[in-house]
Amino acid sequence: MASMSTAFPKTTPFLSHPLTKSDSLIATTVSFPSSARSRSLRRATLRVRSALIEPDGGKLVELVVPETRRREKKHEAADLPRVKLTAIDLQWMHVLSEGWASPLRGFMREAEFLQTLHFNSLRLDDGSVVNMSVPIVLAIDDEQKALIGESKRVALIYKHPKEERIARTWGTTAPGLPFAEEAITNAGNWLIGGDLEVLEPVKYNDGLDRFRLSPFELRKELEKRGADAVFAFQLRNPVHNGHALLMTDTRRRLLEMGYKNPILLLHPLGGFTKADDVPLSWRMKQHEKVLEDGVLDPETTVVSIFPSPMLYAGPTEVQWHAKARINAGANFYIVGRDPAGMGHPVEKRDLYDADHGKKVLSMAPGLERLNILPFRVAAYDKTQGKMAFFDPSRAQDFLFISGTKMRGLAKNKESPPDGFMCPGGWKVLVDYYDSLSLSGNARLPEKVPV
Amino acid sequence: MASMSTAFPKTTPFLSHPLTKSDSLIATTVSFPSSARSRSLRRATLRVRSALIEPDGGKLVELVVPETRRREKKHEAADLPRVKLTAIDLQWMHVLSEGWASPLRGFMREAEFLQTLHFNSLRLDDGSVVNMSVPIVLAIDDEQKALIGESKRVALIYKHPKEERIARTWGTTAPGLPFAEEAITNAGNWLIGGDLEVLEPVKYNDGLDRFRLSPFELRKELEKRGADAVFAFQLRNPVHNGHALLMTDTRRRLLEMGYKNPILLLHPLGGFTKADDVPLSWRMKQHEKVLEDGVLDPETTVVSIFPSPMLYAGPTEVQWHAKARINAGANFYIVGRDPAGMGHPVEKRDLYDADHGKKVLSMAPGLERLNILPFRVAAYDKTQGKMAFFDPSRAQDFLFISGTKMRGLAKNKESPPDGFMCPGGWKVLVDYYDSLSLSGNARLPEKVPV
Repeated sequence: MASMSTAFPKTTPFLSHPLTKSDSLIATTVSFPSSARSRSLRRATLRVRSALIEPDGGKLVELVVPETRRREKKHEAADLPRVKLTAIDLQWMHVLSEGWASPLRGFMREAEFLQTLHFNSLRLDDGSVVNMSVPIVLAIDDEQKALIGESKRVALIYKHPKEERIARTWGTTAPGLPFAEEAITNAGNWLIGGDLEVLEPVKYNDGLDRFRLSPFELRKELEKRGADAVFAFQLRNPVHNGHALLMTDTRRRLLEMGYKNPILLLHPLGGFTKADDVPLSWRMKQHEKVLEDGVLDPETTVVSIFPSPMLYAGPTEVQWHAKARINAGANFYIVGRDPAGMGHPVEKRDLYDADHGKKVLSMAPGLERLNILPFRVAAYDKTQGKMAFFDPSRAQDFLFISGTKMRGLAKNKESPPDGFMCPGGWKVLVDYYDSLSLSGNARLPEKVPV
Repeated sequence: MASMSTAFPKTTPFLSHPLTKSDSLIATTVSFPSSARSRSLRRATLRVRSALIEPDGGKLVELVVPETRRREKKHEAADLPRVKLTAIDLQWMHVLSEGWASPLRGFMREAEFLQTLHFNSLRLDDGSVVNMSVPIVLAIDDEQKALIGESKRVALIYKHPKEERIARTWGTTAPGLPFAEEAITNAGNWLIGGDLEVLEPVKYNDGLDRFRLSPFELRKELEKRGADAVFAFQLRNPVHNGHALLMTDTRRRLLEMGYKNPILLLHPLGGFTKADDVPLSWRMKQHEKVLEDGVLDPETTVVSIFPSPMLYAGPTEVQWHAKARINAGANFYIVGRDPAGMGHPVEKRDLYDADHGKKVLSMAPGLERLNILPFRVAAYDKTQGKMAFFDPSRAQDFLFISGTKMRGLAKNKESPPDGFMCPGGWKVLVDYYDSLSLSGNARLPEKVPV
């Protein structure tokens, strides 16, 4: 895949999607918040008044059994039927256990699954509505169902309507949807839902657990910093100066609106991604380099990993990305062009209309409390030699660099134009593609020193 | 298709879906309400207080231009670009023009279309939510778009994402969905939305227009009768005694609940149906015979035609069927097994889980005001020689007769068991299939004397 042509002509036109733009760099360091506090401490302080946005359902769900009760619970669990979890199942369990999907207390029951598929939202007992756009379900096969069916402790097993789930989540059933191929098509014919007790916090032991702050921990951090506005930036790609410009500009706008201390939650997705995306470990290394270069102010930035898998479900998924960040304390959400989008798996076009994501997000039930901040289109301004907001009156001065284009350049060891990304960050990308071609493999050595 | 075998063995087991059950017949006649009142009269009385359920959005939409202004409007329209309507487009225009889709005031704009696809509901300016589960859109082709694009009077043209529309509406993209093949796959690549003024009431001149009461006319009729509860029964199949039992039983339950005058809205669907369904004209003739036989009380029954096309979109469509009846004044809605369902077009199974329709309906946003009445399962009770509610403790006494089975019997001139349907009604069905085989055609002579 990685062809090895060398020099990158600085004037090559970039003919892809507008994404964001960026400013010149300011040198400082960014603080990565320190690791998890103990759960018992958390519980003691959870009731402390907070100025942050309320979690969905009014209370942040936490499903990890307190340390004092783990021995007893493990003992009880020894007699229960077991379900083998895939890597993605584990990521969802992580998501559920920390309350990213509050008020969900476990894998979806059928009523929750149906509301998600049809309404992208759940109605709670009090009549209020929370957003919930992607099924968080656990599939089991016929054999497991037969084993579990005996047990009285298991709440509800229902049919796994795979085709319908895919059609209603992605708006297509074309073969080649990364998440569907990984986690649905060959999954079991049944789904099992019900309340969950998680016996241990989910850890990956990949050197990155310290960046995996739970919503509770993020809220603590945001409160400690005295945030009066929190704006979340979801990403699954390397950060370039277009992103940075956007984040800096957002902060400026929030200050103009009268907020005194807006905090940025820079929140890369940490779960399953498709094979040609840059793996998490390399992305984190890249983010670190970019942040060391001082593009963002450490005093007003929190970097953390969002543990969800990536569905590439466009307008359906962007709601999940936004909703989960409410639970982590964000009341502003930055949305770009074609969020969570990808190319159509079999046709030569994007799977989603590039504007549908932000339109759907702005109308989504249960997200009324969240302030949606649409991206302004940014591109590389050749006259300034940096990323800047696109000015249609002098369109010819701008180059558009898509994620695909960016990855292609790094793969080919070509350089992007000066001012597109800081050199340290770019080198991480080049190193990543080097490691791929050295291993002679399109997939990645997942661990990398951070 | 119609094979000609003769005698029907009365003891043949019926091995299909439970649908409903029916009682023995009571002989009276049913009153079909008289035809449309003038629009000006309507307008004068629209503000009269009504005890009926409020229409969605608080006010019934009517888009037909008053007679006094038609000449002027037609004159204005002469200069506007024209869009050729298909038969289904016309049915939707009929639906819109009379306010079945209130508060929609025309074919959907993109924001309404997206909310329909993703949320099955629309948020109104005042923050309230109404149900809207099926796209009511008008497709135009590239050429028409080019012509219309010039006109300043046309509100909004946006892309027609056919695959996504089908996937999100039906939960499948398999070829062979009747509505999709008829009205989407080969339709134009663009959708055009905006407020509509309808220059003339939509009429079909098929002898059945007198049964096509608008929501306004139905509300007048229901008020005239002093209804304190209105229960709607949607159907697209011939009425058998199972339906009748169900309707009678529903009335009994409503009386028990304390209502003094529950009125049944027997509301066959009048728009597009798939080729192997019984055409409207024959169904109306069959309904008339069945009702002449006095199965239902004319004092408490209103028979009318619902002008919508049929989508066969199961849980998505049943919401539309229910929502439209709110606008016609119904506050109770009877829902059966697998409503608006059909066989999967390419796999050997039903397209939808038979229970999803009523589950989705009971949770649907915007339908909270509607009382959902699930069918009790009915079947032919061999020991009583009539339709009865299924009793699982003596399952062996019951036969299940599906719509498919019923049509098969009529096609083959076999008789159903005594007590399944009144002989006059059954004869209509046999005559219909006779007319098909005489014409040597699987499709129908659409007109029949009523």
